[in-house]
Amino acid sequence: MTLNPSSEGRKAAVLVAGSWGTALASVLAANGYSVYLWTRSAEQASEINTTRFNGKYLPGCELPPLITATSSMEEALTGAELALFVAPSSAMRQVAKQAAEWLPAHALVVHATKGFEEQSLKRMSAVLAEELNRPQASIVVLSGPSHAEEVIRKQPTTIVVAAEQLEEAEKAQDALMNSDFRVYTNPDVIGVEVAGAIKNIIALGAGLSDGLKFGDNAKAALLTRGLAEIGRLGAAMGANLLTFAGLAGVGDLVVTCTSTHSRNWRAGSMLADGTPLPVVLEKMGMVVEGVRTTKAAYEMAQRFGVEMPITHQLYEVLFQGKEPKAAVEQLMGRLKTHEIESIG
Amino acid sequence: MTLNPSSEGRKAAVLVAGSWGTALASVLAANGYSVYLWTRSAEQASEINTTRFNGKYLPGCELPPLITATSSMEEALTGAELALFVAPSSAMRQVAKQAAEWLPAHALVVHATKGFEEQSLKRMSAVLAEELNRPQASIVVLSGPSHAEEVIRKQPTTIVVAAEQLEEAEKAQDALMNSDFRVYTNPDVIGVEVAGAIKNIIALGAGLSDGLKFGDNAKAALLTRGLAEIGRLGAAMGANLLTFAGLAGVGDLVVTCTSTHSRNWRAGSMLADGTPLPVVLEKMGMVVEGVRTTKAAYEMAQRFGVEMPITHQLYEVLFQGKEPKAAVEQLMGRLKTHEIESIG
Repeated sequence: MTLNPSSEGRKAAVLVAGSWGTALASVLAANGYSVYLWTRSAEQASEINTTRFNGKYLPGCELPPLITATSSMEEALTGAELALFVAPSSAMRQVAKQAAEWLPAHALVVHATKGFEEQSLKRMSAVLAEELNRPQASIVVLSGPSHAEEVIRKQPTTIVVAAEQLEEAEKAQDALMNSDFRVYTNPDVIGVEVAGAIKNIIALGAGLSDGLKFGDNAKAALLTRGLAEIGRLGAAMGANLLTFAGLAGVGDLVVTCTSTHSRNWRAGSMLADGTPLPVVLEKMGMVVEGVRTTKAAYEMAQRFGVEMPITHQLYEVLFQGKEPKAAVEQLMGRLKTHEIESIG
Repeated sequence: MTLNPSSEGRKAAVLVAGSWGTALASVLAANGYSVYLWTRSAEQASEINTTRFNGKYLPGCELPPLITATSSMEEALTGAELALFVAPSSAMRQVAKQAAEWLPAHALVVHATKGFEEQSLKRMSAVLAEELNRPQASIVVLSGPSHAEEVIRKQPTTIVVAAEQLEEAEKAQDALMNSDFRVYTNPDVIGVEVAGAIKNIIALGAGLSDGLKFGDNAKAALLTRGLAEIGRLGAAMGANLLTFAGLAGVGDLVVTCTSTHSRNWRAGSMLADGTPLPVVLEKMGMVVEGVRTTKAAYEMAQRFGVEMPITHQLYEVLFQGKEPKAAVEQLMGRLKTHEIESIG
């Protein structure tokens, strides 16, 4: 159903054609946008245009006719009113660099990528601002509990968009909102970006805990402590703590940690079986943001002087060969008496 | 493993022998307490003592030898250092009234019941204080993410105990803490009691949403809004908002809403199939606290002037014959533009 008739005939570009990018392209198409879905691979573009399926990333989900795949940045961006960046965090700078040449000056820029740049530890809005030569305050971030598979099937989904310039967030809200996809605004860009990135670490930990059969009680404790850990880093970086109690915080954490759709959860559960990290990553065949984010957050915790025990244990499991069981047991904590619950 | 050797030879009473009471009795027994598990039914007491199983409430879980079931209040309470009340909220006053006669003056009083008294809308600590003729500040509440089935199997579990008199909460912590059952203290009794009670309503709603196949994105949105709703009522009653981000809040909400162990979730999912409430309650065969709590919270929302949309919709489904699908659709919200996410 088209709920924004004014967007008919308008053009939007989505970069790149992973599962989340493809699902968001379908939301824009449902709202009447002509959507150009960019991918580096001419072969993938041609397959999508011929079959009307993104077989590699969203098998079984037919794409609406208003989506055109392309490997040409020029074709994707010329005349676009809206550019939605959904590249993996490790590719974001390179994709933005390429896009800068063709991006119209007045196009709205939104990103939906959950992670930090590995070396610089920068947030995605900062990377985009630098490469697109725009004020960071104008960049919109989209986040919240949203499995791509459910979005493309039009199951009810609720998300947030955040920008320092509220009017930019409201433009994104107008473009994406429909009766199946509810969009709220939130002014706290830092909180929304940090929450989205770090929850992938907690999801890895939840997969590890489930894979080791620790049970639902243990996983809930891990999630609760994970939320506190995310909030501590966010607060140190200038975020509003309340953001972590909202859709981009609790909401996304819950959906990622309790659903088998989640790549990070699945990667964690494979690690629990003793599968080595390189094999896990090869088997997944898609980017597992939580792995890179663990490295970035481990460094950020030190930089900001924040205690992040889950991130710390995961770092040791992923990069220093620690036994998953020992890590989760350490997270469940040694016996302490008279410990007061510390939150936030 | 006994981690509190000092508790050996000490006596504790647990009232009553439901699934959660039986699981908590097994924790106390693991810590060396001689535990008297009280039940109104002489038949149930004799079955437990003969078979060493609580077949009705925790089938398949053998009870430790230190647990003795009894239907005599005198036997249960005489000489007890600790009385743990785990009666359904509707029975709490009656059980406490009976217990008052035998409860030693210096016994520690703890409760682990999630609900309010139906007519008075009082919290359980208030009901206990009145019937046991003790200061409410001395009553300890125990809450957190803890399926009984996992606790009795010694899967790692983390909970909180709260009392206005911190030393009472610390006594409960000492009595219950061991390497499988981690106990934190929290000074916010109101927050812990409100969070524990209301999350059963959200769990009913989550079961309804899952039963109607709304998907994980929708359920996560419902949980997030549920947390905000619980927090609003709690804050109006004097709770600390941070409690809702902790084990008694987010933690318990997650475990209750995402696990098929939960009675409230199961009741909601049956309601989604069109099964009428009386049939659902009969099929469950156990108390579904969320049903009563919905009625209580509906009235409390009015008394405190707090918006509780999930409670409101559930009330209409349970007691006014509203279609579950219409209720969940209404919760997912009508289309609004420029709505800012409101949290807490």
